[in-house]
Amino acid sequence: MATQFIIGVMGPGESATPEENMLAFDLGKAIAKEGWITLTGGRAFGVMEAAMEGAKDNGGLTIGILPGDSDSKASPYATIKIVTGIGSARNMIAVLSSHVLVVCGMAAGTASEVALAIKADKRIIFVRPDDLTLKFFKKIGTYKVSTAHTVHETIDLIKNFLSVYG
Amino acid sequence: MATQFIIGVMGPGESATPEENMLAFDLGKAIAKEGWITLTGGRAFGVMEAAMEGAKDNGGLTIGILPGDSDSKASPYATIKIVTGIGSARNMIAVLSSHVLVVCGMAAGTASEVALAIKADKRIIFVRPDDLTLKFFKKIGTYKVSTAHTVHETIDLIKNFLSVYG
Amino acid sequence: MATQFIIGVMGPGESATPEENMLAFDLGKAIAKEGWITLTGGRAFGVMEAAMEGAKDNGGLTIGILPGDSDSKASPYATIKIVTGIGSARNMIAVLSSHVLVVCGMAAGTASEVALAIKADKRIIFVRPDDLTLKFFKKIGTYKVSTAHTVHETIDLIKNFLSVYG
Amino acid sequence: MATQFIIGVMGPGESATPEENMLAFDLGKAIAKEGWITLTGGRAFGVMEAAMEGAKDNGGLTIGILPGDSDSKASPYATIKIVTGIGSARNMIAVLSSHVLVVCGMAAGTASEVALAIKADKRIIFVRPDDLTLKFFKKIGTYKVSTAHTVHETIDLIKNFLSVYG
Repeated sequence: MATQFIIGVMGPGESATPEENMLAFDLGKAIAKEGWITLTGGRAFGVMEAAMEGAKDNGGLTIGILPGDSDSKASPYATIKIVTGIGSARNMIAVLSSHVLVVCGMAAGTASEVALAIKADKRIIFVRPDDLTLKFFKKIGTYKVSTAHTVHETIDLIKNFLSVYG
Repeated sequence: MATQFIIGVMGPGESATPEENMLAFDLGKAIAKEGWITLTGGRAFGVMEAAMEGAKDNGGLTIGILPGDSDSKASPYATIKIVTGIGSARNMIAVLSSHVLVVCGMAAGTASEVALAIKADKRIIFVRPDDLTLKFFKKIGTYKVSTAHTVHETIDLIKNFLSVYG
Repeated sequence: MATQFIIGVMGPGESATPEENMLAFDLGKAIAKEGWITLTGGRAFGVMEAAMEGAKDNGGLTIGILPGDSDSKASPYATIKIVTGIGSARNMIAVLSSHVLVVCGMAAGTASEVALAIKADKRIIFVRPDDLTLKFFKKIGTYKVSTAHTVHETIDLIKNFLSVYG
Repeated sequence: MATQFIIGVMGPGESATPEENMLAFDLGKAIAKEGWITLTGGRAFGVMEAAMEGAKDNGGLTIGILPGDSDSKASPYATIKIVTGIGSARNMIAVLSSHVLVVCGMAAGTASEVALAIKADKRIIFVRPDDLTLKFFKKIGTYKVSTAHTVHETIDLIKNFLSVYG
């Protein structure tokens, strides 16, 4: 059987804008349609929830990597709930478990995930990033950091990056 | 949608006996037939691999909670690979992510998982335990520790414990 | 400069008996008098607190490896507070950071530490263990598990084990 | 007894410039002279090692929060070696255990620490940051991010931030 690819979708939680949430929903939907798994931080708000909702509504499998020691605060759109009990250190597990990372919006938690992903030598796709964010992570991450302007472009980039896994 | 139940199967790795591996295979198979997910430590040997093989061969979903920082040492029977990068501390994540734990054989890693499960207030089923192991964990875990002698008995106990999740 | 040796003292928290707490105090005191650091789980009760109190009252340095994400629940006898934020997974850090482990009483958290210590190939000294505990851990840990009946015997064993670090 | 204050010094490892290493040495020295503990990621190169060398050479206590499962790769200037075994997830522990964070240079690991520190509501002082780094973290961290141009200014800011711990 082929590898089950896992695409991590990262972005702000409670501070996510409606536009970021809509984009995350569309990304989850597109990821599901490719047969990939959508992985997020698993909480019940923001980009995490929107991406899982888009994926689950379209028949995709979703994984939530939860910070707490129970699943009581998980999003209902997280089908598989990984209960880590290690707080924000769970960000590293979300990064390491994803074959490719897609970033939609920016906040402190998201920034820690992107930085850890660069350190772990993962490919990261920023979807419609602001200039400052892109410049900063390009500077510390060089070729590992890509940009997409549409969901379609994002999926094409993911396919390209997944091809190395044969 | 109903909760996707996750059953953790714990036991020795490289030191597992053929009997323990066969029992783990049968447990994975029975768990899959109930529609539950089989979760293990994800490595390519022992009770972990046997349980996932039994589950996967029978159409079940399997999750491997891996200790390393890549999936290069994962069992091919782990469908979803959670790459933690936190070594043996991943034992706690395996425990917290499981609704019920099934123990098949005993070794140091397994003992740490049972102890953490008792602390996390999880229900633990020992399948055909030796006397010493059972006495020790009964002493520190009291009512949280149950025993089964057959796969059938194990599944009945799991059903009973899962009923609290409504 | 010589290595700063760290001795982990493990045992029950709120369920510790007065005898266990008194023994832990005496162990912390004796560890301090040897110039070693006393390391515990850092909370404000049980064997953890008693060992650190014995050490600190006698001029010893103490380290508390705390489970929460702040030091608000630390024992006042923890001089250096390592705030892990990873819950019971911090037990592994307490084990890995100790050159030798001393166990005083038994509970679920303590059992997880002893099991992880066996897995990490550490030397463990049980002080006045009950028969069941000793038999169980001897079975899964063989030569790594020793026994002492007095504080004096414990210190002698520690010296012996530390000699490998040159 | 007064709280033992812990100052985390973060910055690049093998990619640190000679200027960054010299600044880190001077910061460690100044931290030691104030009687505070210097905490770093504990490895034997870059800003981590330089800060601990400056501290230790001037009578200060140093703590290294190590990523691996042994202390074999620790800097000789780390007096207390916390062996976490959790890889880059140890960055969160370094952040949570520090009362104030001082940042000297920028790299992916450092960026993850600053981002986690913002999320954990810690005060962060950038010493002579480049414009891009400062702008990015000011944007996601607002008032939690300060700047200093000299070691003297850094110490004054730390004193100010520590005053809240009474």
